[in-house]
Order: sequence, then structure tokens, then C-alpha cells
Amino acid sequence: MQKLAIGIDIGGTNISYGVVTEDGVVKLKESFPIKEFTDVNVFVDYLAERLKISLTGLSTEFQLMGVGIGAPNGNYYKGTIEFAPNLPWKGKVPLADLLSKKIGLPVKLTNDANAAAMGEMIYGNAKYLKDFIMITLGTGLGSGFVANGKMILGHDGFAGELGHAIFDPNGRMCNCGRKGCLETYASASGIVRTVKEFLAESDEPSVLRHIAIDDISSEMIYKASLERDPIALKAFDYTAYVLGIMLANAVAITSPEVIFLFGGLANAGDRLFKPVKRYMNEHLLEIYKDKIELKPSGLSENDAAILGAAALIWEN
Amino acid sequence: MQKLAIGIDIGGTNISYGVVTEDGVVKLKESFPIKEFTDVNVFVDYLAERLKISLTGLSTEFQLMGVGIGAPNGNYYKGTIEFAPNLPWKGKVPLADLLSKKIGLPVKLTNDANAAAMGEMIYGNAKYLKDFIMITLGTGLGSGFVANGKMILGHDGFAGELGHAIFDPNGRMCNCGRKGCLETYASASGIVRTVKEFLAESDEPSVLRHIAIDDISSEMIYKASLERDPIALKAFDYTAYVLGIMLANAVAITSPEVIFLFGGLANAGDRLFKPVKRYMNEHLLEIYKDKIELKPSGLSENDAAILGAAALIWEN
Repeated sequence: MQKLAIGIDIGGTNISYGVVTEDGVVKLKESFPIKEFTDVNVFVDYLAERLKISLTGLSTEFQLMGVGIGAPNGNYYKGTIEFAPNLPWKGKVPLADLLSKKIGLPVKLTNDANAAAMGEMIYGNAKYLKDFIMITLGTGLGSGFVANGKMILGHDGFAGELGHAIFDPNGRMCNCGRKGCLETYASASGIVRTVKEFLAESDEPSVLRHIAIDDISSEMIYKASLERDPIALKAFDYTAYVLGIMLANAVAITSPEVIFLFGGLANAGDRLFKPVKRYMNEHLLEIYKDKIELKPSGLSENDAAILGAAALIWEN
Repeated sequence: MQKLAIGIDIGGTNISYGVVTEDGVVKLKESFPIKEFTDVNVFVDYLAERLKISLTGLSTEFQLMGVGIGAPNGNYYKGTIEFAPNLPWKGKVPLADLLSKKIGLPVKLTNDANAAAMGEMIYGNAKYLKDFIMITLGTGLGSGFVANGKMILGHDGFAGELGHAIFDPNGRMCNCGRKGCLETYASASGIVRTVKEFLAESDEPSVLRHIAIDDISSEMIYKASLERDPIALKAFDYTAYVLGIMLANAVAITSPEVIFLFGGLANAGDRLFKPVKRYMNEHLLEIYKDKIELKPSGLSENDAAILGAAALIWEN
């Protein structure tokens, strides 16, 4: 009988879930909007119903091993989501317990970037690695650290927030209320802020000047960079500079074999990877220089979050 | 029969060693200068001879379990000291193997700050902690990170160099050849540099102006701060500011339960601990605020390095 796990990815707009085999095949994938579910109990009831219906659609015989959830501000130890600013639930939500009681299966939960790291370890390019860092470059910057073959969760389950390590204590205002966090520079939204600053600071010609400033996206900046637009190129260079320094600082703590870059901005490929690698090596202590690999994730972007969440079940 | 381990602390000037019980009692302690031993084989022969003589002085019957060594740039996996700038041996020195062959006992080696963290875990205030950080504030800044109850050694055995995480990429020149490393600000030598800068920048009165500038030490600065000398107070505040921010960044990676401060500068007690705690909390992400304890080490300064090195033997 085939063993299956359900992986759930909770985002600010949608929740996606999938049924995953031990080998990382996503057999079924669905999603629905999350915004209207202001009552978490109503959400759990609806989710349980959806899962039941989805599973009846599977033709083969199977044994369901459990449900893994990746969520912003997810706490692995407690199975809670705590004070997630972009979700409809306030305070601490014991989502793993609520769902587990409802469906009678083990439910594991962790933050989305840690789930991505787990996915990389179980299904992706980190299968044989004991020490690596996963960086997810979306709207913000998420991170998961693995050392000695285990996820670093910290004493409270909240470890791995490199996006909120401070690059410049007098720098850009962050949504978290502090200044100069890495993610205000190195993320899809960060590179957009960089472009806006560069456009304001000089009269250098750029195709990005022809777009309403609030419509500029990281994809547009990437496309402009392919045409060698000077502002776009400088923005990638500056993003890589900041990310390179902060990755060098992270290396000084955990000395990983590989750092994986994943998500929207990482799709820029060499445009981002090459300068990040250069700046990171420039700022690495001698003993680490040219030893730390920078690689793309081995997971497809569409399935990564679901695979990562499902990996929480196969881990044990 | 009593089980004993030998702990060896290799520093730039002296080597100290001691015979340590499982309970952390240092039964015997000796030291000798290291500078003249430019040939590591001569050093190993001499050290083995000294150890033999020291052990014959013990009155009780005992079983010697092994030798632990803490050394700058020590590599736990390989038992080597690699490119240590302040030691008489160049390149990579396989000290653990050389000594083990000579004395016929297991020899473990790691870097000095990791050894201090091991000592804290086996004998000190970290006995029941699974996630903590050890910071040693000497001439430089050393660090050891423990997560999930295990030392973070990294893929290459060189993890835990927070002293060389970059606070300001355009900042102070560091001995390592890069700029703005944490230890150029937060260490005994760092606070002296801060005072020199402050003395040059203003005419503010200070007792430290009456000392030849190259004679100023961190102890003098501490003493001046007790008399509420304005330059000394500002220097402690600035040191704490830089250390507080960089500790907040380290917390964002490993989320430790406790951070221990150890060594010369940590002896300043509340003068350092209070502002470091304040600045760290100010710069911590909301989920970590007021949850991370800052504590002094539980090891006596005189024995800590030897205990830490010996702890490598009891660990297994």
C-alpha cells in the first residue's frame, strides 16, 4: 500500500495543498483563497472537508501518514502560528492541534522557509548535505539553517530569520518596525525599493522611468537588466552586494557546504548568482573563501512549498 | 579507579594544560611559553615529556581517557591547526595526530571558543541547554554556537567565527585583512580603538588623556568608567551598541536560550551586560524580544580554557 503525506502551504493570499509520495511525487494539488476565513475554526472545518473530498479522488489504495504545514511565523515545537502579520488570524493559533483533532492524523507545522529547507533535504539538492542554508527570495527573505543534519529551530522554534538580520541599523524601514533588515534590500520588494532610490538619485536614462513608479516589479527590473538598462544593472549589483555580505556573516556562524537561493528573485539566475557569489567571497574570512557553494534549489518553484511541508512527515 | 582527561589550551604566548576529573576538578595545572617551538615535532616531543612528568606527580590511581586541545583556528574534524596567525607553526599542522601517536591516547582538538562552549556545556552554566551561544571577549572576539544540543562545527569544522562577521563593510581595518569585523569593535582591543577615536574626535575631558595613547588598556577604560569618565562611559556604550546589534543578528539565525559572555571585557559586569542587553533587545525581531538571556559564564576564568579542552574528551 502506498504511503502518502499531505503538504499544506499557507500564504497571505492562498492556501495550497498537495498529496505527496515518499519519493516526492505530487499526486494532486489544489488551492483556495484564505482571506475570508477570519475564524480559524471555520477554516479548519472547511480545510478538513476539502482534504476529504480530494483524497476520495485518488484511485490507488494508500495509507495517509500525516499532514505537514508550512506557514509564516510557524512554530515547529508548538504547532502554532504566532502573530503572522499577513494572515487573517491574530495572536497565537494552535493550527496543528486543531487540524489534528479534526482529521485524526499527526499534523506537523513549521515556518515556510524552514519547510523549504526540509523539502530541499528530503527531495531536492540537499539530500546528502548535513550543513546548508536555504534562502527564499520572495516578497520578503526567508531562511532555513541546517547544521549537523538537523534543522536549527532554536530554543523557541523560531530560529532562521536571516531576512530580519540587520544590514544597516540606520537603513530602510522594515515592516517589522525596525530599520535596515536584510529583506528590505534583498528580496523582490527590496530590489524595487533600490530601483526607486536610484531613479530618484540620478537622471541616468532607464526604461524603468517610463513605468508608473508604483507599478515597477522585480520581473520588470530583471527584463530591463537583460537589455543592459543601467539602473536595473546597478540595482542587481547593489542587491547582490548586500546579500553577499549578509551571507558571508551567516557563513561565519554555521559554515555551510552549500547555500541555496530559491524563489522569484533567484529566477534571475546568473544576473543574481554571479555577483552574490563574488561579493560573498570578497567578504568571507580567509578560511571560508571559495569553499561555500551557491546553488539554485532542486525543487520546482510550483511544488516546493507543498513538498517542503510534506517533508515534515517523512523526516520522522 | 578515577577517570581523568588532560585539557590543553594553546595561546599565542603560552600553552597551559591541566588534569581534569569528570566533575570538572582541575587536579594539576602547568604552563610554558610556546614562541621558541618553531618546529612542531620538537614541541610535541617536549609536551609529551612534560605531560608524563606531570602525571607521575599524581598520588591517586587513575585511568587517562584522552587529551583535548583548544587552539586558535583549530579544526575538530581533522584535528589540525590551520593558518593560525599568532602561532609559531605555518600552514596546516596535524597536532592531534602527532600528539596521539606520541602518547598513545585519543586526542581531540577544536578552536578555543568552541572549547569554551563545550566547557560551559559539560561543567558550567549550560548543562541543561540545547541552544546557546558562547562569546569570548579577549583580545579578539571568539564564539561557539550550540544548536539541538550539538556544537555547530560546519561542513569544514570552522563554524563559529562571529568575531569576523562584518558590522560595517566600510569600517575598521581588521587583522584578517577585511573591514568592519565585529571584533574590531567588541573586544579588549576594540574598546581601546573606540577610546582612541573618541579622544581624537573631541576635547571632552577624560583621565584617559593623561595616559600615553598606546598604553591605554581595556582595564584602564573600565576603571575610568567606574569614576564616570565620559569618554570611558561612551566607549562602553558604543561597544555594547555594536555587540548588541550583532548578537541580535546571531539570534535571528539560531535563536538561543542563553548567550554567555566570557573573558576580560565581560569582567566589566553590568557596565557591559546592561547596555548590551538593552541594545540587543532594541534590535531583536518582535518574536525574540526579552526571551534571550544574557549571562556570565559559569567557569572560572583561570580554568575555563583547560576545562573546555578537557570537555572534548567527556563529550563522547
